[in-house]
Amino acid sequence: MKLKVKILKFLAGRPVCMIHEKTAEQMSLHVGDRVSIKKRDKKIISIIDTASGIINPYEIAVSNTIVENLKLKKGDAVNVEITSRPQSIHLIREKLKGKELKKAEIEEIINDISRNALTEPEIAFFISAVYNKGMSLNETKNLIQAMVQTGSQIKLRGKVADKHSIGGVAGNRTTPIIVSICSTVGLIMPKTSSRAITSAAGTADTIETIAKVDFSIKEIKNILKKTNACFVWGGALKLAPADDKIIKIGRIIKIDATAQLLASILSKKISVDSKYVLIDIPYGKSAKVTKRQAEKLKIKFLKLGKKFGLKIGVILTDGSQPIGNGVGPVLEMIDVIKVLQRQNPPKDLEEKSIMLAGKLLEMTGKVKKGNGIKLATQILYSGKALKKFEQIIKVQKGKVENFKKLKPGKYNHIIKTKRKTKIKHINNKLINSLARQLGCPEDKSAGIYLYKKANQTVEKGDKILTIYATSKEKLEHAKKFYNKNKKEIVEFG
Amino acid sequence: MKLKVKILKFLAGRPVCMIHEKTAEQMSLHVGDRVSIKKRDKKIISIIDTASGIINPYEIAVSNTIVENLKLKKGDAVNVEITSRPQSIHLIREKLKGKELKKAEIEEIINDISRNALTEPEIAFFISAVYNKGMSLNETKNLIQAMVQTGSQIKLRGKVADKHSIGGVAGNRTTPIIVSICSTVGLIMPKTSSRAITSAAGTADTIETIAKVDFSIKEIKNILKKTNACFVWGGALKLAPADDKIIKIGRIIKIDATAQLLASILSKKISVDSKYVLIDIPYGKSAKVTKRQAEKLKIKFLKLGKKFGLKIGVILTDGSQPIGNGVGPVLEMIDVIKVLQRQNPPKDLEEKSIMLAGKLLEMTGKVKKGNGIKLATQILYSGKALKKFEQIIKVQKGKVENFKKLKPGKYNHIIKTKRKTKIKHINNKLINSLARQLGCPEDKSAGIYLYKKANQTVEKGDKILTIYATSKEKLEHAKKFYNKNKKEIVEFG
Repeated sequence: MKLKVKILKFLAGRPVCMIHEKTAEQMSLHVGDRVSIKKRDKKIISIIDTASGIINPYEIAVSNTIVENLKLKKGDAVNVEITSRPQSIHLIREKLKGKELKKAEIEEIINDISRNALTEPEIAFFISAVYNKGMSLNETKNLIQAMVQTGSQIKLRGKVADKHSIGGVAGNRTTPIIVSICSTVGLIMPKTSSRAITSAAGTADTIETIAKVDFSIKEIKNILKKTNACFVWGGALKLAPADDKIIKIGRIIKIDATAQLLASILSKKISVDSKYVLIDIPYGKSAKVTKRQAEKLKIKFLKLGKKFGLKIGVILTDGSQPIGNGVGPVLEMIDVIKVLQRQNPPKDLEEKSIMLAGKLLEMTGKVKKGNGIKLATQILYSGKALKKFEQIIKVQKGKVENFKKLKPGKYNHIIKTKRKTKIKHINNKLINSLARQLGCPEDKSAGIYLYKKANQTVEKGDKILTIYATSKEKLEHAKKFYNKNKKEIVEFG
Repeated sequence: MKLKVKILKFLAGRPVCMIHEKTAEQMSLHVGDRVSIKKRDKKIISIIDTASGIINPYEIAVSNTIVENLKLKKGDAVNVEITSRPQSIHLIREKLKGKELKKAEIEEIINDISRNALTEPEIAFFISAVYNKGMSLNETKNLIQAMVQTGSQIKLRGKVADKHSIGGVAGNRTTPIIVSICSTVGLIMPKTSSRAITSAAGTADTIETIAKVDFSIKEIKNILKKTNACFVWGGALKLAPADDKIIKIGRIIKIDATAQLLASILSKKISVDSKYVLIDIPYGKSAKVTKRQAEKLKIKFLKLGKKFGLKIGVILTDGSQPIGNGVGPVLEMIDVIKVLQRQNPPKDLEEKSIMLAGKLLEMTGKVKKGNGIKLATQILYSGKALKKFEQIIKVQKGKVENFKKLKPGKYNHIIKTKRKTKIKHINNKLINSLARQLGCPEDKSAGIYLYKKANQTVEKGDKILTIYATSKEKLEHAKKFYNKNKKEIVEFG
């Protein structure tokens, strides 16, 4: 049936539409039914709601996502039809029962997720199925391929390389440093990052304190032409969009199916044409994985790399405490600049960045095996990495003069030790939670400065950490959280 | 924050609300966040969406469910506050990982489902967890108890009895007959039924062809006072509402976790104060369960009955083909009336109804063991069951004169045999699907009349079935479906 478009600025982030009760009745449509909305050759699937009062019969109110996808204007006529239950729901049920899915079956599910034909609870069933029944290596490969195929792809020439950390370690902002080092010697590094979901900051949040990160694919290609590297937000690029949707639902329950973790990382890398990928797996107490899990994951990464003709390097690193001093976008950016400018840099952040950059230089044949750390150190210490970083920031519309203007939130509270003792453990998860209470990552200058690391001895009255916030309320809120959890945030003894 | 109510007639069937983008920003709210909306002592939890254009700052647009729950009027002031992520999400994750849940934990999940604190994908994760990890008998018991506690309950005196079929057999409309027989001798039978979800008709749809089925709890009590029995739609009564929500999400994927099936049935029975429950488990080819599964289910029913002090009887019946001649609300009602009026009744429907009624009469001590069938037959054959049925229909605002006006849809198509052969199988699932194609259960007079049963020999030209529809289009549509699936709908040879 032809319906007239009415634009309601719903920001639901997914296709939602409403039609008048009477029109619904006439079309035999019920709330929750799936319809296809067509304008010329473009089509989108949406879940329907019905209403009266705000819309008239023969009108369809549509959300932003639909407007953008179909390039609609108010008053446009669109063709609305009921679409049947996608066959992929049946395949998800089979997976829940433990069946191994074939290539075409995985493609069907992923295609339906990316074109919005599956609802949130349906995606939740898929996530649980993959979590509970696992995926074979072949299924995982097909999952990755399907995710890549249903999204945008960037084609690039040259030695395209990338690095990725599976996350879980507070502060761990090695990416800007590694990219600056490696792109200096000609590696192409189209670094797309997410914003923080559960942690204090993502690379995108951090770079955003001094430059823009939101670019189109065309703009990214231009940036890369000028600088070999970029730090951009991947969120709007539609690289493997099915993965974005799965992550959105999966994070509700905070379960990480291994197959999904692998697919999420590799689909993004393949989408930007990476040929060399270095994976950092931090393990240990309060990290995402144990050493055993890290080793298992490593094997899977390497096997999948072979299947895709990707050169993958995996390094298991110490993830038992935060890396660097700062936690939160601004504070982490300050750490990164300290390392690049060689001004009182956090040692652990510098060392880890050099080690990973060295490994990537070796993997890509830029230097002989065993000499990577030496070369990476040279590039960093000579100031070339800083120059490259400044160049990227400028091309991304940032100002180098602003580096020194970076300041943490004006409200702060210092935590000191009460007695001479030793630091036993600093909990990554709780440090991240504390930073979130302070307002990270939206409040870019909120965060934590850590003065000490595990195994250091401290004297009575030594500073342990300072918390920063942009409002008194948030500071008080976070102080309460700290006091409630202090025994676990920093363990002494 | 105090916000002003604007009523948008959303019919989403769950609490949805919208606030202005600016107000959201001010309250640090994001799309998908959970808020509590309070008016005086009443509170409801809702998922938030943001908009601009249709609502002003400091307004909140709310769906029908919220309006009804809080008894809101346009312009009312409500208190809106962000609520944190319910702890029950964490418990669902634990269950997904295989943990056995404690009583208080199950209560927390079910309480959150019933008060709308959990979203659809969150409920989907719970369903998958129960499906994949199962539930112990104790967990199932606690699940039932939690479902009952969070819903309405009807308290009744006397021998309150109920019967339930786990479903899956087309036509199988024994309930009105059994209830009419058993309530004649004093059993109290508050029969609440659902409308058909995937089948051609539910008991509520069928009774609705001649009487009202939508009553409040108070009205039901009045009906019971007058007649000892009723046939009402349970959908709006909020008996175990968490179960309704779980069913709604679960039917997306059509998986039936055993624990959920048990909980769904028994929670409804306990909510209406049943002390005696007879369960019919049809098994066999194209039924819901195999004989082995039926036997396992029986044991679980009996064990749970003991835990609740319920007297449960379980009968395994032949579910390998449809029961009766009619499939679809009107056609099934005609079958029921034929049995009650003793006018050319479908033998299988009559026999099964007598057998189950007999068993219930024995279970409740209305007759000595072994004499149930005899008593049930007497009540039916004497016309007492018909009289009771007519009495119930009248109290439920129906007219006995209308019995003879019941007619199937005016468009029909007869399927005949092409050769002398034997009927091997009639597929329940496909007969139900065919009826749905014809428009059941919304089109009450749509449906199928079956002339033959499995193992009967047929001559060339014998009628096998007639399909009935209310429009030519639907008839043609169903004919196509029949032709595509005819080899499986009725198997010959």
